[in-house]
Amino acid sequence: MKSTKEKIINILIDNKDKYISGESISEKLEVSRASVWKHIKNLEKEGYQIESKTSQGYKLIGRTDTANPSYEISHRLKTSFMGQRVDYFKTIDSTNIQANKIASQSPEGTVVLADEQTKGKGRIGRTWVSEQNKGLYFSTILKPDIALMQAPFITQLVAASLTKTFLDLGIEISIKWPNDLIYKGKKVAGILTEMSAEIDHISYIIVGIGINLYKKDFEDEIKDKATSFANEGIEIDRIEFLRKFFPNFEDLYEKFKAGDKRECLDILRSRSAVLGREVYKIKEGERVKVFARDIDDMGNLIVEHESGQVETVFTGEISIRGLDSYI
Amino acid sequence: MKSTKEKIINILIDNKDKYISGESISEKLEVSRASVWKHIKNLEKEGYQIESKTSQGYKLIGRTDTANPSYEISHRLKTSFMGQRVDYFKTIDSTNIQANKIASQSPEGTVVLADEQTKGKGRIGRTWVSEQNKGLYFSTILKPDIALMQAPFITQLVAASLTKTFLDLGIEISIKWPNDLIYKGKKVAGILTEMSAEIDHISYIIVGIGINLYKKDFEDEIKDKATSFANEGIEIDRIEFLRKFFPNFEDLYEKFKAGDKRECLDILRSRSAVLGREVYKIKEGERVKVFARDIDDMGNLIVEHESGQVETVFTGEISIRGLDSYI
Repeated sequence: MKSTKEKIINILIDNKDKYISGESISEKLEVSRASVWKHIKNLEKEGYQIESKTSQGYKLIGRTDTANPSYEISHRLKTSFMGQRVDYFKTIDSTNIQANKIASQSPEGTVVLADEQTKGKGRIGRTWVSEQNKGLYFSTILKPDIALMQAPFITQLVAASLTKTFLDLGIEISIKWPNDLIYKGKKVAGILTEMSAEIDHISYIIVGIGINLYKKDFEDEIKDKATSFANEGIEIDRIEFLRKFFPNFEDLYEKFKAGDKRECLDILRSRSAVLGREVYKIKEGERVKVFARDIDDMGNLIVEHESGQVETVFTGEISIRGLDSYI
Repeated sequence: MKSTKEKIINILIDNKDKYISGESISEKLEVSRASVWKHIKNLEKEGYQIESKTSQGYKLIGRTDTANPSYEISHRLKTSFMGQRVDYFKTIDSTNIQANKIASQSPEGTVVLADEQTKGKGRIGRTWVSEQNKGLYFSTILKPDIALMQAPFITQLVAASLTKTFLDLGIEISIKWPNDLIYKGKKVAGILTEMSAEIDHISYIIVGIGINLYKKDFEDEIKDKATSFANEGIEIDRIEFLRKFFPNFEDLYEKFKAGDKRECLDILRSRSAVLGREVYKIKEGERVKVFARDIDDMGNLIVEHESGQVETVFTGEISIRGLDSYI
């Protein structure tokens, strides 16, 4: 159930750039005009810029960065569950930690979004730096009724969905198997998938996504490896991005659950930054040079050793051989 | 670090049935005699029966059911981690829920033990009835560095370790694949394994075990299917059982991590209540009659359909065809 405040901002969004009277809002929502006025004042405090004229009513003219973006993300979103509920935080320890806390009680597709993470998580206990207003940090709760051995594909599914969304925006992105997105040879986004399961039954999966959207100074040791879209001269509005991403993600996710991975695998293979290249397979610190040959139907990487021996890489990391760049 | 109270009860257990002076305890532990006396009084309140004689000191003569059993379980336990820490609760929602809460901060092998569970969990969201003093309810935290696809074997490993322990006690137990123990055709114990993982990396596994040890009235609808050891005339002391179980479990677990599953598979195959029988394979409510042929090296059940087709059963349930009994 949406709150009255959320219903009011939705009406204002629907009527953007024209006035709508307090009376018509009050009639539509069956609340008092005083209540409408109170909510409008609260929305203004949150950062929505609303003009009010005595005889004409209210008009939404803009928003500041502090405004809660969740109303605009989920309003008239073209999905049946993905992103239909967005829990927004200005700052939080980690969107994955928060999503874990609420997962059992939340519907599939619930999203936790934050402006800043104080304990952003990377893979295998690493940190993912998530300063305020430098990126888009969010986690999605999934509850697929699939076998445990299908679960690792979820990371690939999210990589494909993100890539499709960037391509829709005309941005040439590629995928560094298994969980990084690459723009112009540098990392711009990462995916961290966590799972809670009985040994043969998935309870829920949390997909955490971090995208470097805004201007950002990278430390010396990673500035050759990482970038942000703003640093590359690309402006992306996070609300518009999410409203395009959720339908793409839901579509590929539904197909995956129905057993159809074709579109997903097409994207993974055609947009791979790894395939057809010599890469280092790094496991427990040991580097072995291999040739990345294919991605199989389970999303595993097929590599060929110098001896000609072919190996399926399920886990661990792949690092790409390159003299001047991250890949 | 053990508490002074725990060190004192350990000294009393080491010197069971003889007196030990307050002075020698105080010297050994480098605490005041007043402190020794205070802890002895607390142990008495908890249910330990301690005799004190003016010139001779203290003697442990027994314990009531209310005494905290964790001191006796872990004291001089012949393992390097399994059961070395036991968190004991008279009553708790579920030992698995509690173990989940403490898992990240707790060493491998930590055990949560309770006299009673108010929300005992069975598989796939079912309830496991866990009344006070009717059974042994505990959960163990594991942190194996194994691939995700190896994880389902953990349930089999626990089933084998429990079975070995019962056999050591001369009790003829068998295993209803994948997670129930059977005595005289009825269920006496169940295993619920849960996991928290990144998509390619296990964070921790919680193994919950419930054993019907004590006298218990089963409801009409399950009394042909379930029993307790006491109902069958077998007395088992839960402390002694756990002190035998943990070394067996640690031994098989260490071998499993080193890639040696032979002993485990021997037990699973030789003590199976399923192999060599016609059983119903039940999945999503659909029953198919199959012949249970083998357990493979991953712990999966190999069944043969009436058509002769052979299938590997990874998940779901197996129910055993039987006219008069649970198996």
